Amino acid sequence: MSRKLTDKESIPAVINDMTLEEKASLITGMSVFRTCGIEHLGIPPVLLLDGGTGINFMQLYQEFIYQATYKINDNEEENSNKSDLEGLYSIGRILPYIGNPSKLSQEDQQILTMANSELNSMKPEGKEPGCFPPGMLLGATWDPETVYVCAKALGKEANAYKIDVLLGTPNVNLHRDPLNGRLFEGYSEDPCLVAKLAPQFVKGIQGQGVAANVKHFAANNQETERMGINEHIPVRALHELYFPGFRACVQEGGVKTVMSAYNKINGKACTENEWLLTEVLRNQWGFDGFVVSDWGAAYDQVEAAKAGNDLVMPGPRSAQPLIDAVKAGRLSESVLDKCIENFLEILIEMPVMKGRKYTDIDTDFSKRAAYKAVAEGAVLLKNKGEVLPLNKSSKVSFFGKNSRKFIESGGGSAEVWTDLSSNLYDSTIEKIGSQLVSFEEINIDTEAVIITVGAKGQEGSDRPDMDIDLADREMLLRVIGEAKASCSKIVVVLNISGPVGMMDWINDVDAVLCVFFPGMEGGHAAADILFGDLNPSGKLPLTFPKYYRDCPTYGNFPGENGEVWYGEGIYVGYRYYDFKGIEPLFPFGYGLSYTSFEISDINLESSIFDMDKGKKFNVKVKVKNTGKMAGKEVVQLYIEAEKSMLKKPPKELKAFKKIALKPGEEKEIIFELGKDDLASFDTGLNQWTAEPGYYKILIGNSSRNITLEGRFKAVGENPYSYG
Amino acid sequence: MSRKLTDKESIPAVINDMTLEEKASLITGMSVFRTCGIEHLGIPPVLLLDGGTGINFMQLYQEFIYQATYKINDNEEENSNKSDLEGLYSIGRILPYIGNPSKLSQEDQQILTMANSELNSMKPEGKEPGCFPPGMLLGATWDPETVYVCAKALGKEANAYKIDVLLGTPNVNLHRDPLNGRLFEGYSEDPCLVAKLAPQFVKGIQGQGVAANVKHFAANNQETERMGINEHIPVRALHELYFPGFRACVQEGGVKTVMSAYNKINGKACTENEWLLTEVLRNQWGFDGFVVSDWGAAYDQVEAAKAGNDLVMPGPRSAQPLIDAVKAGRLSESVLDKCIENFLEILIEMPVMKGRKYTDIDTDFSKRAAYKAVAEGAVLLKNKGEVLPLNKSSKVSFFGKNSRKFIESGGGSAEVWTDLSSNLYDSTIEKIGSQLVSFEEINIDTEAVIITVGAKGQEGSDRPDMDIDLADREMLLRVIGEAKASCSKIVVVLNISGPVGMMDWINDVDAVLCVFFPGMEGGHAAADILFGDLNPSGKLPLTFPKYYRDCPTYGNFPGENGEVWYGEGIYVGYRYYDFKGIEPLFPFGYGLSYTSFEISDINLESSIFDMDKGKKFNVKVKVKNTGKMAGKEVVQLYIEAEKSMLKKPPKELKAFKKIALKPGEEKEIIFELGKDDLASFDTGLNQWTAEPGYYKILIGNSSRNITLEGRFKAVGENPYSYG
Repeated sequence: MSRKLTDKESIPAVINDMTLEEKASLITGMSVFRTCGIEHLGIPPVLLLDGGTGINFMQLYQEFIYQATYKINDNEEENSNKSDLEGLYSIGRILPYIGNPSKLSQEDQQILTMANSELNSMKPEGKEPGCFPPGMLLGATWDPETVYVCAKALGKEANAYKIDVLLGTPNVNLHRDPLNGRLFEGYSEDPCLVAKLAPQFVKGIQGQGVAANVKHFAANNQETERMGINEHIPVRALHELYFPGFRACVQEGGVKTVMSAYNKINGKACTENEWLLTEVLRNQWGFDGFVVSDWGAAYDQVEAAKAGNDLVMPGPRSAQPLIDAVKAGRLSESVLDKCIENFLEILIEMPVMKGRKYTDIDTDFSKRAAYKAVAEGAVLLKNKGEVLPLNKSSKVSFFGKNSRKFIESGGGSAEVWTDLSSNLYDSTIEKIGSQLVSFEEINIDTEAVIITVGAKGQEGSDRPDMDIDLADREMLLRVIGEAKASCSKIVVVLNISGPVGMMDWINDVDAVLCVFFPGMEGGHAAADILFGDLNPSGKLPLTFPKYYRDCPTYGNFPGENGEVWYGEGIYVGYRYYDFKGIEPLFPFGYGLSYTSFEISDINLESSIFDMDKGKKFNVKVKVKNTGKMAGKEVVQLYIEAEKSMLKKPPKELKAFKKIALKPGEEKEIIFELGKDDLASFDTGLNQWTAEPGYYKILIGNSSRNITLEGRFKAVGENPYSYG
Repeated sequence: MSRKLTDKESIPAVINDMTLEEKASLITGMSVFRTCGIEHLGIPPVLLLDGGTGINFMQLYQEFIYQATYKINDNEEENSNKSDLEGLYSIGRILPYIGNPSKLSQEDQQILTMANSELNSMKPEGKEPGCFPPGMLLGATWDPETVYVCAKALGKEANAYKIDVLLGTPNVNLHRDPLNGRLFEGYSEDPCLVAKLAPQFVKGIQGQGVAANVKHFAANNQETERMGINEHIPVRALHELYFPGFRACVQEGGVKTVMSAYNKINGKACTENEWLLTEVLRNQWGFDGFVVSDWGAAYDQVEAAKAGNDLVMPGPRSAQPLIDAVKAGRLSESVLDKCIENFLEILIEMPVMKGRKYTDIDTDFSKRAAYKAVAEGAVLLKNKGEVLPLNKSSKVSFFGKNSRKFIESGGGSAEVWTDLSSNLYDSTIEKIGSQLVSFEEINIDTEAVIITVGAKGQEGSDRPDMDIDLADREMLLRVIGEAKASCSKIVVVLNISGPVGMMDWINDVDAVLCVFFPGMEGGHAAADILFGDLNPSGKLPLTFPKYYRDCPTYGNFPGENGEVWYGEGIYVGYRYYDFKGIEPLFPFGYGLSYTSFEISDINLESSIFDMDKGKKFNVKVKVKNTGKMAGKEVVQLYIEAEKSMLKKPPKELKAFKKIALKPGEEKEIIFELGKDDLASFDTGLNQWTAEPGYYKILIGNSSRNITLEGRFKAVGENPYSYG
């Protein structure tokens, strides 16, 4: 009798009892979102599902349709004669008609009925999942606590849904180019902001027993030719920009799984990239969970296993190439053992082994979390003459279909099907009464028009340009004209996946509020902001350029003929705009409030920082609410090296604090800096180097509004001194 | 008895008679600038010497000091016991003191005396060589005839000096970044301009019996870490930008030798790069001369021979690695045979075999050629209120040491030691008399100050910044202030290796004339221009940006830790400024005249161009001198693809004509376009593709002054249509 998987100590014996075929199948997906179980060894199948913005029903449908294909009649022999592919064919046939099943064959209707029944049985107390905002809005909160709370709510739901690994929690791919179709999923253009926020998402998820999953490792920054695009990236840029979010999720967040990406880096597919998955991820960073390929990204299973990619998804997929390679001596069986050990060490901690913590969804908790994200993350970009907040006795008219239904979470993996939603129009009626609110009409007494415009974003394709969606754009320009004619104030709400061009209309409108993709509570929160029940405090997590041609990546996105050159190197985002002296439309870190703040009294602990003592270096500033409304300010600390061996960007964000202040209230903030905050990655030495010398500390409330400066001398061992 | 090398037919037998050791030594330099001869086979040593701007005496000194080291006494045994390195040691010891030999030991003085005697015996009729302007001024002429005449004069001198291969004739490395120390040696930032001019240089040289040499193949665009810098360059950029000058010298010029460069391209040293030296150079372009390594660039002789690098320079260097490799079976002897065949096929046509055509130097011819280059290439950048030309009765004062001695040819390989020179100050005195000319003093009656400022350029190091040289800069700002105080007109003469920043003084001066490095006749020609005996007609062969940070390469030059990323890809020079919408200070193709021109009456042969008929497509325009002085205009034709599969720059130069017109005179110009002019390099298909569709023809007298437009439809086979 085999031994069974029970705990960490049991793993070696379990592996020892496996046949080669069992080993190979265990690390090769069984179905679309499940792994193979091995019953006699006590290894259950594991459910891996998206995602970072809520439970992805579309994927669950795929999984259940797949399974139902093999269960639709009592004839076990007939079922077992079906090929692995039949389940996939079912998905392709049935998924488009789940809302219209009468178009399906009788057998397919049976499959769908079974899948629906499975899906419904999954729903805790019959409840549908919440829709949480994607990374860009979370990035705009500049608030680790908010990120944690959102993830906690999501983790509770995932646990209740019996999910073992929640994929894309988080997606930390950097904001490289505005046109990336999945830009909205990532947090920021700045690695420090990503690295300080993203680990909180991991903690929030894993605190609820579900394994988190950070994706897509690494530099998955475009959808065009995403399978196999060869990205030529300077190694320094990888370490300084594209890696820190991942490293932080590993080292600060303790993330249990990492998803390897579709793309190549410098000629090598990520799933087959030993430098990436073993040298950097495990040896340098100490990752001890397992690596799962993005769905279909493990182009060569044998090379993937060798490189350190533990699990290949999705199934069904033949494990024969692994078996053959071992038998032919091209792959050591110990490589499979290592993959399995990595996988089982995480599996023993999953809900499928430990049992689930929740049988119900705390929808109120989820809504509060989702609301908090918008409350902290919506960015007020313009507010001429303090037109916002609007008076609750104002007569307003809404324009744009998104006023009645925001794009809440984007398309693809991030898409959430749910009955939970809020909308700006209805939320406003709830707040000020229907007699003051109209839709798409301007009357003589319309005091303000509120125009919501969108810019879609989705997995699978990049945006064609940096504009708002064409129909919305035409509507916007028309309504601006009409509103000006009737002397109404004009408020624009941006419901966007990333930066949009505004140069041809920004001067014609009074206020602009950006809610990005705001999740299920977007409507409520946006209405609260517009009418002053909530003071916005989000700050842009990425630069909004005047024109797309101003971008660092212009001409190098999305590449050509399967090749893309990261020509901007380390100059991504504000690092580039600063370096090239290009004025952005709205800079990184920027966002207005209904109140005003003053930052003062910079105080450095010392004029000298001894880097080799292992201690932190404190910088204090005071911040005061000098306006008439309670609010929150994000104080940002950037560092500038006055002189350095390696070229450095003009300034780099190293710390920030979000602080709530009542009118007139003043608080002191303490920033702690360390040696790491002075370091850059030297590819010659293949290590981070912190160089002695003079550094400036720049404090402000955006990357382009620096109001305080300090200066200190770093002393210690010089990595560039010889002899 | 061995057969002797006599002609092409004799080569196989000669190779057949060589020992392996002879073969290896023949393709490995003997001394600093000479190859090994093999006397019994009738193969003489060959002298390869710089360069493109005149006969390089410094290198001749090196060669003769080296040789003298082994001849200083009659004791043959003692001489022959000296190691190969002793000659090199002598060079190091003696070269710094050739102007001050008393500091040398008695033996070294003897060596120097011998070397001096050899050098003097080389001088045809005792004459010193002429100093010709480097590539940048030739590029500014936009005139193939001028390039040819300069090369012809130089070729005559080289023949008279018994040089067999004149190195760097021409240097066609593209102008990538203003700070490249050798920027001045290259012709242009535009591959079309390079490709139309550079082959004329080859023809001019080879017409005089000397083998020309195009360098440095390829993309040798910086001096920092030049030995072994790894350049990450998109292959499309190589084909479209960095290769066309070389290809034209091979295919149009029939160049006999190519110099392989120090740098690596995408991980592979140029000298060891089979794709570069064999696949591209020989197989694609049909090159049938020999490849010689840059001095010290063949890091691995065996790999170099395999890759297609025929000759390794300099010597002395042991050929043992080649011999060992053949004996060990790592290198086929047939590879050596091929190198030798390539080398001997050119050798049989060299002066050392054919005898020299000239025993004297026609100094007048050389001077006229050098003068013509300045006459055609000096660029008038600014002329407020037509302050130039100056009246010959004007009282003027010169400032700046370069007014009395221009930097004529740059430092390093391009440096020329000669007694031939002209200077602006003395030339002006000759022209208007000494009573009207003063130096570095402003008096009450000084009508104009003429300030010459320099920006050095040299082999071995890049410029630290885009400024004029510091002392000149301080002088310039001071003199501007003084001249304004005395109400003198201010004329600045730029004697520069490339673009310089002018934003902080350009508005304070009346006129700016750029002579680049003008060669030995710079003084005469510049004086003629300033006083109206010559009407300037040069046009910038590269963009002058407002600020260095505006450059396409900013942040990607000169790289770090031995790696540099060509992040700008195909957007070099004006392609980038156009694409990014950045206003340059002076655009590519720009230059003023003392007269004015009108370009009119664009006339396309047809609105449809059938690309597959192998015919040319004619575009006619008229150009008229509408001013009062005879002059020359450069009419430029750019092409814009309205829509294309491959991304293309907004416009690309495809043709140009320089035309001389008397006042009131009008002429018609005919441009011929071909299918190639519509093509871009598709790396997916690994070929040039000309796509059917609409194209615009843009005509103007600079890249930013387009005054005529035409449009045609190209029809023919579509490389992107399938099935």
